[in-house]
Amino acid sequence: MAENRSKDIIVIGASAAGLRAAARARRLLPDAKILVIDRDSFISYGACGMPYFVSGDIHSADRLRETPYGIVRDTDFFRKSKGLEVIIETTVERIDCENKQVYCRSLKNEETSEYRYYKLVLATGANPIMLPGVPTDSRRITTFKTLHDAIDLRKSLEKREISKAGIVGGGFIGCEMAEAFGALWGVEVVLIEATPNILPNILDPEMASPVEEYMRSEGVEIHTSCPLQGITENDEKVTLETAQGNFEVDRVIIAVGVKPNSRLAAECGLTLGSRGGIVVDDRMTTSDPNIFSAGDCVEVKHMVSGQPMQLPLGSLANRQGRVIGSNLGGGDERFRPVVGSAAVKIYDMNVASTGLNEAAARDAGFDAASAWGTFTDRADYYPETENIHLKLVYDKSTGRLLGLQGYGKGDVVKRVDVFAALLRHDGYLEDLLDMEFAYAPPYAPAVDPLFSLGAMARNSMFEGVESVSPAASLDDRHVLDVRQEVEIAGQPLPECDSQSIIPEELREKCEAISRDKPLLTVCAKGIRAAECTRILKEKGFMDVKYLGGGLFMRPEK
Amino acid sequence: MAENRSKDIIVIGASAAGLRAAARARRLLPDAKILVIDRDSFISYGACGMPYFVSGDIHSADRLRETPYGIVRDTDFFRKSKGLEVIIETTVERIDCENKQVYCRSLKNEETSEYRYYKLVLATGANPIMLPGVPTDSRRITTFKTLHDAIDLRKSLEKREISKAGIVGGGFIGCEMAEAFGALWGVEVVLIEATPNILPNILDPEMASPVEEYMRSEGVEIHTSCPLQGITENDEKVTLETAQGNFEVDRVIIAVGVKPNSRLAAECGLTLGSRGGIVVDDRMTTSDPNIFSAGDCVEVKHMVSGQPMQLPLGSLANRQGRVIGSNLGGGDERFRPVVGSAAVKIYDMNVASTGLNEAAARDAGFDAASAWGTFTDRADYYPETENIHLKLVYDKSTGRLLGLQGYGKGDVVKRVDVFAALLRHDGYLEDLLDMEFAYAPPYAPAVDPLFSLGAMARNSMFEGVESVSPAASLDDRHVLDVRQEVEIAGQPLPECDSQSIIPEELREKCEAISRDKPLLTVCAKGIRAAECTRILKEKGFMDVKYLGGGLFMRPEK
Repeated sequence: MAENRSKDIIVIGASAAGLRAAARARRLLPDAKILVIDRDSFISYGACGMPYFVSGDIHSADRLRETPYGIVRDTDFFRKSKGLEVIIETTVERIDCENKQVYCRSLKNEETSEYRYYKLVLATGANPIMLPGVPTDSRRITTFKTLHDAIDLRKSLEKREISKAGIVGGGFIGCEMAEAFGALWGVEVVLIEATPNILPNILDPEMASPVEEYMRSEGVEIHTSCPLQGITENDEKVTLETAQGNFEVDRVIIAVGVKPNSRLAAECGLTLGSRGGIVVDDRMTTSDPNIFSAGDCVEVKHMVSGQPMQLPLGSLANRQGRVIGSNLGGGDERFRPVVGSAAVKIYDMNVASTGLNEAAARDAGFDAASAWGTFTDRADYYPETENIHLKLVYDKSTGRLLGLQGYGKGDVVKRVDVFAALLRHDGYLEDLLDMEFAYAPPYAPAVDPLFSLGAMARNSMFEGVESVSPAASLDDRHVLDVRQEVEIAGQPLPECDSQSIIPEELREKCEAISRDKPLLTVCAKGIRAAECTRILKEKGFMDVKYLGGGLFMRPEK
Repeated sequence: MAENRSKDIIVIGASAAGLRAAARARRLLPDAKILVIDRDSFISYGACGMPYFVSGDIHSADRLRETPYGIVRDTDFFRKSKGLEVIIETTVERIDCENKQVYCRSLKNEETSEYRYYKLVLATGANPIMLPGVPTDSRRITTFKTLHDAIDLRKSLEKREISKAGIVGGGFIGCEMAEAFGALWGVEVVLIEATPNILPNILDPEMASPVEEYMRSEGVEIHTSCPLQGITENDEKVTLETAQGNFEVDRVIIAVGVKPNSRLAAECGLTLGSRGGIVVDDRMTTSDPNIFSAGDCVEVKHMVSGQPMQLPLGSLANRQGRVIGSNLGGGDERFRPVVGSAAVKIYDMNVASTGLNEAAARDAGFDAASAWGTFTDRADYYPETENIHLKLVYDKSTGRLLGLQGYGKGDVVKRVDVFAALLRHDGYLEDLLDMEFAYAPPYAPAVDPLFSLGAMARNSMFEGVESVSPAASLDDRHVLDVRQEVEIAGQPLPECDSQSIIPEELREKCEAISRDKPLLTVCAKGIRAAECTRILKEKGFMDVKYLGGGLFMRPEK
């Protein structure tokens, strides 16, 4: 074997994790021979930005490959600017761990090559999941994973080949693509989701439902609890077959998630987790001490549940890559468990979550309870203020924070990010009461939503002021609507056993409320109803709860 | 004394702290007799929103007094809705702690009254500082503290009585008022600040200077290091006299800060701090166990410096009020030390900080070092992305986080809020590397600015990749400009000893750089220059540093 076939470090995969690891190692080891191998022709692009390229918001695909100062990140860039040798359009066919050797084949000319390594980094990413029975050779039925996918789709849109699109899967990509098709190109979209709600990994059903209604109001046809039963294609159309009907479309995107690309790792005997991800320790070392792994192909540990999970996010891949690079360079950096923050923008709606949702919290064995609230994201009198709708999940035995999820046109993401910092430090409800926000009317109300949520949760735990889910039935209890007349006119209560008393008159008029039936107080956002619940309990009403988050969290269907 | 003159709880001051304490106490003690006394006719208004009322962004002053559902928060509202007795336009003249009695006088009819209390809450707020020699009886020279001040000013603007305004003091209120005068009303503004930079409490000089330049570009005339030396008034004009010239204006706002209104506390012998604030323990109890205090009149303890400070913020006042209310109700809540987050919006510029600035960190005895950076607030390819400019202050002996400050048109505040959560949990640089942000291109770059800042600081501490302040002189070193040609054309370097080599060519061309002189690498944002510094050190250049934050943090004067 020629000398130049022996490398100090070989990295398989030239995306966020692999290139970050390689670049960091290069900085710490100026003389090391580092080789990065990728099977694609495009490397180091902003895959998360692809929906914005398809939508037309980003003009050219090269924008996703450029540095901020306009240099395309190709092999030439990495050689000159980062001192890295990158070979592309080359697949690694096999790893021989014992002899520390990788076997490659060029996808351009089928030539094979082999390289020895001292340390190996697997950054092989994830592959999109294909549903059984779905043709894999159709130009009109594809997943959406690579820049090639995005460029093909954009071309079809520019040629006006698509007037109706079908999206299978209501996760991030499905929701982003629904907007990408519809907003600029005017393509009709039907989105089908197998589970009972869209965004099932980050939102509980009562939180997802208003987002669904909002997407419908923007023109997206959504069917939930609607698994794909079959798919057929003829010269004219593709037909999606479901129990809720057949949908004829011109183009189908299958976006039902990804699975770790751990084939090479499995074949050379590295330990995989139950979900197929490569198992690594906190230094990102696999079960072979000479092989590191990072990015969408590894399993991470959830900090709150303690359980292993897949979390394919570019932000984590970057951080993991740095950890590997540092450790290759002689350092001792650790990648700690994650809380799993995620966000997606859908039209003008911001959706984000961190930690565990209520279902996941129960699965993980917590005594999970929730608090909901609707808040303005800035001072309510500030002209540009918008509402946000939040759900806090906590453990009601201990007050430990478990998760936060939210949606709304206002700044949800900031609250999720701050909450994530508390989660990472094992936060409790009282930490929400201690939080400091940089307060000015354009940025936050004087009492921040997270403070209010924490107070609501504590009021429930310690003072018996309890709420029900914003999606709860209004038929089980006598409903006391404490809104002002003008608010009721704007959003009338659905038909139910109800009466209306404003808070200002409640102390005087509470004798007019029947004591025979459990009560449910309702208002627009949940705050006044909570306060009225307390007053009614003082006045001797035994069974009173309030509608968490208020009627603003109950979209009309 | 009549029975109704004996109260369980008396609260002096019907603003955020006092009313929150009273309302919370009422919830926990439904039968307590609670009286709130205030000398003003307006109570419970959003004082922080007053600049937006003056500017015209908020139409009516009542918006600052209303609940989000349109009810004005007057005494009637508090009686009916919160079950609180509030008397207004009444001043408390004296407290007799021994006999637990307060002596009041009506400002409407001069009638006096006295009340016994079981527990007393002082929420007397702060008074604006008046400079010596400034007339206190002029309608044209005022402070800006009460809603009356705001209403008067708005009337003058509506009557077009002001064509030029003078602002004395470049803190939050001074800066907000500069915009309020100028933006809608077209009033010319001259702002004078005694210290060397505006916003001296939250920004170090090199961070304040670009904000000043930005305000100048919006038409505000600013003079720093320019104390007021005299002020004269005639029928036509008011003249501000300074060493930098005399300024003739129609209206003057004195906005040089506030001091705790602790007169009553002092007169009845409560312990005050060195800055005149009322000293309280973590239950918000004063030196008299029957008297609590909260809001702008108390001293708080800084969590990082450990030192007492004044921090007059509505957000803290609310939280302190809740603590008192809970403790009055039999609870045991604590108000913990603060990190002092603050924010201000000036035109389209967001400015925020938390923790200690560099000067304060040195004063507090830390081995303070700084890292600067310019970043996009979202993915750089995302269409609406904006720059933010951040400065991290940390202890270079330990890596402990001490403070963060930032400005820019992008989302500075989110980073400050997340950083504040870390500060409250005694964070270190490695915590920045572990942070999780809800990542999607519309919300953050894949590598968040806080991660990058943490990495830069660690690279300086452990790997010798050092920066200089963005305001540093370019004359002390040979400057290596690593920007692309098109960038240099857009923002040429000032005249200095310099040469230009792009990073892609640096490895080849570094022999062309003189080794005789210390080097300074510069780029637009600091990232590339940092990387080039590392390469040059590898290549044997001994004294190389980079311009922190890049040339984007050096405004042209």
